Amino acid sequence: MTNQGTGRPSITVAAVQTQPVIGDVRGNLAAITEAVTRAAERGARLVVLPELCTTGYVFASREEARALAEEVPTGPSTRSLTGLCSELGVHLVAGIAEREGDLLYNSAVLLGPDGHLGTYRKVHLWDNENTIFEPGNLGLPVFDTPHGRLGMLVCYDAWFPEAFRALALQGADAVCLPTNWVPIPGQQPGEPAMALSLCQAAAHVNSIHVIAADRVGTEREQPFIGQSVIVGPTGWPLVPPAGSQEPETVLATTDLTDGRRLRRWNTHNDPLANRRPEVYAPYTGGEEQRGGRRG
Amino acid sequence: MTNQGTGRPSITVAAVQTQPVIGDVRGNLAAITEAVTRAAERGARLVVLPELCTTGYVFASREEARALAEEVPTGPSTRSLTGLCSELGVHLVAGIAEREGDLLYNSAVLLGPDGHLGTYRKVHLWDNENTIFEPGNLGLPVFDTPHGRLGMLVCYDAWFPEAFRALALQGADAVCLPTNWVPIPGQQPGEPAMALSLCQAAAHVNSIHVIAADRVGTEREQPFIGQSVIVGPTGWPLVPPAGSQEPETVLATTDLTDGRRLRRWNTHNDPLANRRPEVYAPYTGGEEQRGGRRG
Repeated sequence: MTNQGTGRPSITVAAVQTQPVIGDVRGNLAAITEAVTRAAERGARLVVLPELCTTGYVFASREEARALAEEVPTGPSTRSLTGLCSELGVHLVAGIAEREGDLLYNSAVLLGPDGHLGTYRKVHLWDNENTIFEPGNLGLPVFDTPHGRLGMLVCYDAWFPEAFRALALQGADAVCLPTNWVPIPGQQPGEPAMALSLCQAAAHVNSIHVIAADRVGTEREQPFIGQSVIVGPTGWPLVPPAGSQEPETVLATTDLTDGRRLRRWNTHNDPLANRRPEVYAPYTGGEEQRGGRRG
Repeated sequence: MTNQGTGRPSITVAAVQTQPVIGDVRGNLAAITEAVTRAAERGARLVVLPELCTTGYVFASREEARALAEEVPTGPSTRSLTGLCSELGVHLVAGIAEREGDLLYNSAVLLGPDGHLGTYRKVHLWDNENTIFEPGNLGLPVFDTPHGRLGMLVCYDAWFPEAFRALALQGADAVCLPTNWVPIPGQQPGEPAMALSLCQAAAHVNSIHVIAADRVGTEREQPFIGQSVIVGPTGWPLVPPAGSQEPETVLATTDLTDGRRLRRWNTHNDPLANRRPEVYAPYTGGEEQRGGRRG
């Protein structure tokens, strides 16, 4: 299938929703390998996995996290997933507990058939992650692939539209979002996750794809809400989101670069070009304003 | 009714959805007066009206717009609405075609029982507005009222999460959003407006209220989509949005300052305090980055 607008071939992308078991790296990797293999059989060429998908999320201590974390790209999980990419001919984004020396990061790795392509370290840490991980120190990078330019964010990063914007301004066609969404205040049973609105808004105002892979299950009394989703550059999900209870894979076929033309809404309007940074800067720019807001 | 968390009285807020007729300022003001009076009778103390609610939206020329525009706060529509506020004891936000000398602005005015409290001039102009209005030159101000601190944005401004963030960082409790939403690419009939996701996301990630008053009807072949909405600081609408076809008023009773405590999600997380401006700045900060993205 080719996109009539660009002549570029569409590809199938997958958000693989899993149910990791805390500490069981071997078992988690086996489940991931199975799910990614099935997704590739269904045509997927870009696969996104959840946050901390090989280790689980709710670490009892920094020591437990440190024992499970690994160096990137030489650690065993990263090497195993890189081998899978090579075998299946897919690109993969996975959430990994990364260790560099004595420091830990909640990272996302981009792997391809030819190996490790890039690492992102979660900038905005949620709750007890602050006692375990360092804030990301690699900025908000983008990476070119044959399917388009990709950025990565992890879970709570999506609460910062600044982060999506930073990636879009660098030409990201899609943001891959490994996540471990938890229930939030005001969430009503059966209602779509608020996180879905965040993904839709980010996709729409930047004309980018957002591919969010969440986990399910309850880990050490912390429930997770699933609802993995692939949002297109108009802001609507390309396929219905996953359910909230079971491991599941959602797939969509799309040209990841569609947003490059879709964001030219009319003669005057392109939401990236229409930004007015000089208007925002006095309020959003620096430390002085952050302190001032509490006055 | 008082809020148990703060002891502050809740108030009723209203988003008044109207169907202006282009050029018929007298008729539009009569309909507005009627609708605001009814809202006040139902208890409303803060009322938001649509963008360009006294003049209509689809000007045939800059000359037509100029003839309908008025100075603020001395123009006839602004004075009429200020009188209404005084009579009813309400605060009101209304979209007004503003003239200053020979320049026109797509403005929102904040009026109260004691008169004119503030003006915002739309920063991000949509489509042909660029041939009629100047971009707003008053920044992104906030204004204190007895009900909380208010910011204003107009329609396409909501496509810029930077604008909501700038207001929230200044302590805005609610953003009043006069709007004239048009159908957008990918919109499916019967599906909630993408703009609803933008309002929900902005409310949620900033823990603020968003009160969006839209218009309905078709004007010079341009349809508008209604669906006015009042979103609370968790990000969920406080009441169902208005329909897409008819003039209608939605009301909700709330403490506009709820977000001040709700945004403290846990020991570590407050989405305004957790921002990392130094991380975003290299990508989002200035003109150099804007130009660079097209390379």
